[in-house]
Amino acid sequence: MPRYKFTVEYDGRPYCGWQRQSNGPSVQAALERAIKGFTGEAVAVGGAGRTDTGVHATGQVGHADLEKDWPAETVMKAMNFHIQPDPVVLLDCEKMHEGFDARFSAIRRSYRYRIFNRGAQLTFEKGLAWHVKADLDAEAMHIAAQEFIGHHDFTTFRHTKCQAKSPEKTLESFSVRREGQVVIAECSSRSFLHNQVRSMVGSLKLVGEGKWTPQDVRDALAARDRKACGPVAPADGLYLTAVDYRSKAKDTENHLAKQAEKALKAAQEQG
Amino acid sequence: MPRYKFTVEYDGRPYCGWQRQSNGPSVQAALERAIKGFTGEAVAVGGAGRTDTGVHATGQVGHADLEKDWPAETVMKAMNFHIQPDPVVLLDCEKMHEGFDARFSAIRRSYRYRIFNRGAQLTFEKGLAWHVKADLDAEAMHIAAQEFIGHHDFTTFRHTKCQAKSPEKTLESFSVRREGQVVIAECSSRSFLHNQVRSMVGSLKLVGEGKWTPQDVRDALAARDRKACGPVAPADGLYLTAVDYRSKAKDTENHLAKQAEKALKAAQEQG
Repeated sequence: MPRYKFTVEYDGRPYCGWQRQSNGPSVQAALERAIKGFTGEAVAVGGAGRTDTGVHATGQVGHADLEKDWPAETVMKAMNFHIQPDPVVLLDCEKMHEGFDARFSAIRRSYRYRIFNRGAQLTFEKGLAWHVKADLDAEAMHIAAQEFIGHHDFTTFRHTKCQAKSPEKTLESFSVRREGQVVIAECSSRSFLHNQVRSMVGSLKLVGEGKWTPQDVRDALAARDRKACGPVAPADGLYLTAVDYRSKAKDTENHLAKQAEKALKAAQEQG
Repeated sequence: MPRYKFTVEYDGRPYCGWQRQSNGPSVQAALERAIKGFTGEAVAVGGAGRTDTGVHATGQVGHADLEKDWPAETVMKAMNFHIQPDPVVLLDCEKMHEGFDARFSAIRRSYRYRIFNRGAQLTFEKGLAWHVKADLDAEAMHIAAQEFIGHHDFTTFRHTKCQAKSPEKTLESFSVRREGQVVIAECSSRSFLHNQVRSMVGSLKLVGEGKWTPQDVRDALAARDRKACGPVAPADGLYLTAVDYRSKAKDTENHLAKQAEKALKAAQEQG
């Protein structure tokens, strides 16, 4: 059974998040319905990151196994046809080896957080950005954001119900810049804790307003206490923009090496 | 009674257009409802351009008279409060002399037309851009757009039900450029005929696809025949971005001169 990798864009507003739920529509269910419409198969679609209710994506990655060996282009076009009218589309589709897993093979996730910084309420961007009225100092936010870079215990910046075993993560990059009325924060890490980006952005907003200094961010991190976190930023402004994997060649090589190892072991056990 | 000028932004998707209608919600009615909520007055709001069903604005201009002499800032904030949850906001508010009329004082209207040019259907941009799958040559569109510049009989490029007395207009500027997957067309004129921008963009799209040449645009203009127009572009991509007026000083000067002339005439008639 060939395995397909999908790059997926979605407007998170109508969804209770990526993951299939009993209480509302999910992106995962929309993709699974599209496959069912295309081939009639009831398959599970795996995802790289479980985005929360109302969180968007421009580069989520999913995978699924199909019975027939379709060209990737055909899978993409058929799924995009069948997923309508949901605001979810496949931007890319690729055939992968069976060892590929959208979640476990990922080596980097990138998020963007958009703050619409103006007095008047939002029109076109309602639900697509965080509306902050007070003038934000994006440069100060950028400087403070550098405090998060590197290996830290992010207990302060994760949801109290976060299920990750360890609160330690290594943040690779974090930048904040202004583009007209929009303040854009972008960060990357191998993986993130539950609500980590929104928690960090919520605290950086306090810096932007002049209420917190970089030292306050440092202290909040050091506290390792959820209560030290600033008010969490809403889902509206959050976008999963990219998930990176090892190059396909490297991945296939690893997969083949693993297969060979397994075969050798089996042979040794039999011998 | 002080007259107020409003600069208005709106997402046109839920509206049957700018103008008050019996069969659906309009932007004008939303603004009038906001004034009613603010001061209790039932006043008519005049607009610079009657945008059609589904057409958006980032710089529409309206005016209305209020009984009390409020600071412009107060009017703006109160109206923005009372207009919620409609996707309409005042971006600016200014007190004007009684001679100011959003429609008749305008000396220039500017429109933007956005084409989202990619294979996959739209998610975030559904209803906010025209989705065109075929690769468009924006440079060719720009070159052909220059054919529209200047004084022409635009019979080919106006709605058959257009109520303007004359089909002649003078187009001041028309540019087309690509920004990533988005092709942006922008044009300005003292005033436009009904459906003129959408008709011109619909024909330029044929140029972008390589189906029409600049000569075809020239011929279509010269035909002065609605049937010579390419398929009209949908409302989704159209934005009224700006309405220009003479400077306030110049306008006040004209207004005072007119008043003086009137007074002189009245005095002469009496004498």
